[in-house]
Amino acid sequence: MAAGQPLQVMEVNLDGPRAGEVLVEIKATGICHTDEFTRSGADPEGLFPAILGHEGAGVVIEVGEGVTSLQPGDHVIPLYTPECRECEYCLNPKTNLCQKIRSTQGAGVMPDGTSRFSMLDGTPILHYMGCSTFANHTVLPEIALAKVRKDAPFDKICYIGCGVTTGIGAVINTAKVEIGSRAIVFGLGGIGLNVIQGLRLAGADQIVGVDLNDSKFDMATRFGMTDFVNPSKVSGDLVAHLVALTKGGADYTFDATGNVGVMRTALESAHKGWGESIIIGVAPSGAEISTRPFQLVTGRSWRGTAFGGARGRTDVPKIVDWYMQGKIEIDPMITHKLKLEDINKGFDLMHEGKSIRAVVEF
Amino acid sequence: MAAGQPLQVMEVNLDGPRAGEVLVEIKATGICHTDEFTRSGADPEGLFPAILGHEGAGVVIEVGEGVTSLQPGDHVIPLYTPECRECEYCLNPKTNLCQKIRSTQGAGVMPDGTSRFSMLDGTPILHYMGCSTFANHTVLPEIALAKVRKDAPFDKICYIGCGVTTGIGAVINTAKVEIGSRAIVFGLGGIGLNVIQGLRLAGADQIVGVDLNDSKFDMATRFGMTDFVNPSKVSGDLVAHLVALTKGGADYTFDATGNVGVMRTALESAHKGWGESIIIGVAPSGAEISTRPFQLVTGRSWRGTAFGGARGRTDVPKIVDWYMQGKIEIDPMITHKLKLEDINKGFDLMHEGKSIRAVVEF
Repeated sequence: MAAGQPLQVMEVNLDGPRAGEVLVEIKATGICHTDEFTRSGADPEGLFPAILGHEGAGVVIEVGEGVTSLQPGDHVIPLYTPECRECEYCLNPKTNLCQKIRSTQGAGVMPDGTSRFSMLDGTPILHYMGCSTFANHTVLPEIALAKVRKDAPFDKICYIGCGVTTGIGAVINTAKVEIGSRAIVFGLGGIGLNVIQGLRLAGADQIVGVDLNDSKFDMATRFGMTDFVNPSKVSGDLVAHLVALTKGGADYTFDATGNVGVMRTALESAHKGWGESIIIGVAPSGAEISTRPFQLVTGRSWRGTAFGGARGRTDVPKIVDWYMQGKIEIDPMITHKLKLEDINKGFDLMHEGKSIRAVVEF
Repeated sequence: MAAGQPLQVMEVNLDGPRAGEVLVEIKATGICHTDEFTRSGADPEGLFPAILGHEGAGVVIEVGEGVTSLQPGDHVIPLYTPECRECEYCLNPKTNLCQKIRSTQGAGVMPDGTSRFSMLDGTPILHYMGCSTFANHTVLPEIALAKVRKDAPFDKICYIGCGVTTGIGAVINTAKVEIGSRAIVFGLGGIGLNVIQGLRLAGADQIVGVDLNDSKFDMATRFGMTDFVNPSKVSGDLVAHLVALTKGGADYTFDATGNVGVMRTALESAHKGWGESIIIGVAPSGAEISTRPFQLVTGRSWRGTAFGGARGRTDVPKIVDWYMQGKIEIDPMITHKLKLEDINKGFDLMHEGKSIRAVVEF
């Protein structure tokens, strides 16, 4: 519950939903690097004590006053990027970054400024990313819940709450990759693999995966990777190698590492004239990207994406449909299933590079 | 004729046009900062001896074998960015960077690898940016000439060969600014003013000009600037000031300074979620841009433009039409007219900040 400490599993109080809020029983939650970023204390905006977790799926138990779009029994995926459909951001088709509840979400509280969680002695516990899915029950604003079909399995679709949508959305919503494109994906973890399957879905001709770990090869190939590059085995300049491999540079490159040096390599391996490089990874606090402006003047674009550019209430149900229709795969990426009492083991597996996604089932 | 030296006005030999080439009598040419960048020796790719100049207008005198799109008497504007309409770049709608003759152009020669210019003693003189408009006559490839209407005055439309197209094109072709947008333009020189009139043409609601020199105010206002900011008179953070002035950041920002610190300010004053920053200026050799990747992940895009994203043979004649129709203005920006023998005075005026554009008339 404190920065740098293992998670503690404990009984807490949870108040019921207030106006515009919804009580959700969480059925499954993934463990993501962003949870670890905050848990470790590296996140300068991390607040404690808090209940972490932001990649979940569950069932509506109770709705607060004024909630009209959800009712008890609905299956939902919590959204750390909400969709109010009425703020300046939601009304601008160029962004998905709804700002309606940003300040209270950042402060770890519900929109009315208070937390629903507390210790048994009454001490408040903060919400995390507006979700707090590492809990049997949690409360969220109505605008932060995507209603999804009831036949989709919680232990798979919870991953759509972050990793799947972030990776696939970066391809489809942010880059808008065209059929026949060449692409490079840096980092073949839980996000990078979803970028790869997003590229396959979008009809890319060449999908180059770049990772220092050769063991990523099989899984990435299974999701659509056509070429693998291990930078530690490239003699000479990596950018030159990638430009040659993609016949002049990639139409689209994606950073899923969070390393600012890799972000530069990603930009510079994009094709002169039209290549776009999309930053997905979260960099360490204070780290900066840099390049010569000539890279941009000669036609490359440097962009970023959050939650895959997805508008959660609108897009997440569609991605659940794609999974159920077999257009995308999730099952092979859920490499570990845990009980809540073993949640710290999920963080260990992530550190050891053994899991793509460990999911806690309640 | 050598790096760092004043230009020398002298008689030279000029061979006639070979296959695919055209002999042009230059009638007028502007003096641009890029000429000065090369003349001064700061351009690492500058080659000497050469005939500088790349912003001209003239008349076709003779065409070489196989030239079909031009004939003697046609009025033309030389294009340092050609348009072959058959290379991979010309066939991709996302770029204007025709690569057909890039390598020979960079080497200061015609596509067959030789120069048409020579000293009276026979020593070859190199072409510059494929144009060499600081000459009574010059030879260019057919694909590097835009044919324009005959009633347009050479001493004005020569400016369309670089500055006008670069500035207006950055708005229209690269940024694709929408009606009602808010924009910030950094640097109110010969390019920045054209960005401003491009924004006016595109229907921008707010056009903020940023320059350290208060004397730019009147001219920029005349071309459509709605707000002026002199950074030396802003107390506190310039980005915060600009974000407040534009109610959350500009939809589009443009760097027309070539200063990498200004480029960062331009990016960071773009609006969260959707702001785009376009680099137009040419930075000193080796200089790098940098920012925190969070700026991009939260929805800003960093891009660049060369020759305003214009496809010269297609777009330059249209911009000449816009000038003749009164949609854009050029006359007030041509602040000085010179004879060829006084060309070094044009460089002095530029250094002293006294000219927007000095034009040499032949």
